[in-house]
Amino acid sequence: MHTLAIVGLGLLGGSVAAAARSRRLAARYLGYDRDPQVCALAQRLGLVDAAGPDLTAALGAAEVVVICTPVASVVATVERVLPLLAPGSLITDTASTKSSIAATASRLAAARGCAFVGAHPLAGSQQSGCLHARADLFAGRLTVLTPTADNTPAQIERASAFWQSLGAQVRPMSPEDHDRALAFTSHLPHLLASALIGCIPLEWLGVSGPGLRDTTRIAASQPTLWADIFLDNRLALMLAVDAFRHRLDHLTSSLAAADRERLLHLLQEGKDVRDQLGS
Amino acid sequence: MHTLAIVGLGLLGGSVAAAARSRRLAARYLGYDRDPQVCALAQRLGLVDAAGPDLTAALGAAEVVVICTPVASVVATVERVLPLLAPGSLITDTASTKSSIAATASRLAAARGCAFVGAHPLAGSQQSGCLHARADLFAGRLTVLTPTADNTPAQIERASAFWQSLGAQVRPMSPEDHDRALAFTSHLPHLLASALIGCIPLEWLGVSGPGLRDTTRIAASQPTLWADIFLDNRLALMLAVDAFRHRLDHLTSSLAAADRERLLHLLQEGKDVRDQLGS
Repeated sequence: MHTLAIVGLGLLGGSVAAAARSRRLAARYLGYDRDPQVCALAQRLGLVDAAGPDLTAALGAAEVVVICTPVASVVATVERVLPLLAPGSLITDTASTKSSIAATASRLAAARGCAFVGAHPLAGSQQSGCLHARADLFAGRLTVLTPTADNTPAQIERASAFWQSLGAQVRPMSPEDHDRALAFTSHLPHLLASALIGCIPLEWLGVSGPGLRDTTRIAASQPTLWADIFLDNRLALMLAVDAFRHRLDHLTSSLAAADRERLLHLLQEGKDVRDQLGS
Repeated sequence: MHTLAIVGLGLLGGSVAAAARSRRLAARYLGYDRDPQVCALAQRLGLVDAAGPDLTAALGAAEVVVICTPVASVVATVERVLPLLAPGSLITDTASTKSSIAATASRLAAARGCAFVGAHPLAGSQQSGCLHARADLFAGRLTVLTPTADNTPAQIERASAFWQSLGAQVRPMSPEDHDRALAFTSHLPHLLASALIGCIPLEWLGVSGPGLRDTTRIAASQPTLWADIFLDNRLALMLAVDAFRHRLDHLTSSLAAADRERLLHLLQEGKDVRDQLGS
């Protein structure tokens, strides 16, 4: 690849650049971020060769563009990027929700002779900013690819190869299945972590060990990013919350009844599932 | 100290032995565990000099006895240990709940001319067994000391010095305050982690990243240990669950109303608290 462009130079964008560079995927790396200071930092860190706050004609040289902006601005960014690209270019992204983005973006791209194949690397962190970018952020981690009917098999294969070349394990899913799954495995845990840390009396916060730190770490994530993720996947997330409440009700009714056998059974079921995840 | 005795050679008991030995706290280490294989393992690992399934007269030489059995058997163990001890001996423990244990155990010990000063090192792990024992398990971590009216200042100071000598930061609290605090900072997170992992559709379990692993790691803990902790601290835990539900209701009603400002506000409050905990 001659030129790889990255729009949005946060943790994910910076890590895409770092991973691509460490694997020598492209000859030239272009970066865009609405914050000029972030652009300067990304250049200083050696993540990109050139960076600026405004999309430029230089984008026309990019074979692949990765949109790493927050969920709420991915489609608008795709709309601004497309007129600058050469036909045949591939756009992919890193957004945590896919249904609302993938359908629109892939249709817009197809109409311009380009391709948008949505992606979600499950490799975030409560940290943010390209200062925390890591070349190995995607290595061995799952990246879900969410093609639509507007994507050809060749486009899907190209996007898959791109993410694999960053070290990711790629798994294709429909945007809708992705959002239903992530409502349970990512958005629900974030919401619960926030509710948990938010209900603890401050005087007792310090009387805690690694368990509380682990279970609430993701509650330190950026509120604006997560509010938009929650809102974009609102219905699926509310169904996940219902399922969680149902399970919690089982546990607390066993507790209220001091039913040790039932409590043990429920905890063992949870442990059996958790043991499948590994440490 | 000439002799240190440890009853219950699991992760905590093994780590007390390892920490004491690495700091050369005693000349001789005695271990007891109802499982003869665990006793043999603890000896083979060099954690204790002698170990066996039955409490022996050798315990009479122990200046300090640490009870590291599960919550439900601490008081019964104290009752069996006391007749073997020399007057002036100190008993401490590692149980995760304190109200029901500390009052009874400290009264029994005082009646025998010994002292029981309850302790709870906030340093567990989802792992169990002395194979995972670590000499640094308590280092820099909080150990809550829960003295009662049956303890003299000198006894409290002695127990405090013992735990500090294992590397712990010691904080005294009443057994009741300890149990109210830990209901929020430890028992509630465990219950929620189990409810969370237990509600996730199995087909989507693999579509997950580090966030799910972190938030549910403690759900892999031993069900029997935690069922007894939950039951022993049932009322405080149910109050904590109520507080959590209240906070979750705020979050989900903001979500249902698509009230981004209120959602942002709640998430920011959670982040502010979490940021105080450190990574």
